[in-house]
Amino acid sequence: MIKKVDHIGIAVPSLEEAIPFYEKTLGLKCEHIEEVAAQKVRTAFFAVGEVHIELLEPTAPDSPVAKFLEKNGSGVHHVALATDDVMAQLDQAKEAGCRLINETPVDGAGGKKIAFLHPKSTFGVLTELCAKK
Amino acid sequence: MIKKVDHIGIAVPSLEEAIPFYEKTLGLKCEHIEEVAAQKVRTAFFAVGEVHIELLEPTAPDSPVAKFLEKNGSGVHHVALATDDVMAQLDQAKEAGCRLINETPVDGAGGKKIAFLHPKSTFGVLTELCAKK
Repeated sequence: MIKKVDHIGIAVPSLEEAIPFYEKTLGLKCEHIEEVAAQKVRTAFFAVGEVHIELLEPTAPDSPVAKFLEKNGSGVHHVALATDDVMAQLDQAKEAGCRLINETPVDGAGGKKIAFLHPKSTFGVLTELCAKK
Repeated sequence: MIKKVDHIGIAVPSLEEAIPFYEKTLGLKCEHIEEVAAQKVRTAFFAVGEVHIELLEPTAPDSPVAKFLEKNGSGVHHVALATDDVMAQLDQAKEAGCRLINETPVDGAGGKKIAFLHPKSTFGVLTELCAKK
């Protein structure tokens, strides 16, 4: 079952440029910055109620986020939905005819299990399902 | 002060096509459908924790959402942040050098006061500020 929006991932070319927008313009606070080597990104986290805004800066030209920025510019990269069981959620999606990027959950940042649904099946919104281990 | 993510607005060509994705694939429930004549959209609402996912279907070719779909296809159209005081939030944003779409709050759906920040200043994310009246 989907429990909440876990985070909104936003692609930006530079954390150093984008963080002041969230801090000064919106008055949010950057909680921490983390490099996720597997995804070739550096991420900055802002708590907004029960949701996190997660800024994503590519750390290499072949980072998926670098490719996204080249094609689309800055903007919402993905929306992550928290569930208690990623595999059950994937099974439900598959049964409903949804195209999957990950057929089974993989390890994500912060020790979470994650899987992505394909944006071709999700009306253009790259959708992540995630659960705490 | 920003309190939470109020909703994520997602542009789709047809509610009838998109609603089954959210219901069957994700297991969410469509709470209600509402036409917002001023914005020339029909919207479908899904509660996901404290956030709503709001699907936006244009009702006229000159709807802002129709133009968005033409340019980008389906996808995240805007992210709305709940605050207790939209005007104070706009003042803070303006002082920080943010470009505004609405210099003062306007009436939104559900009796809310709303205002948009310009995506040129918000790293590509059309950002709505909203407050209950």
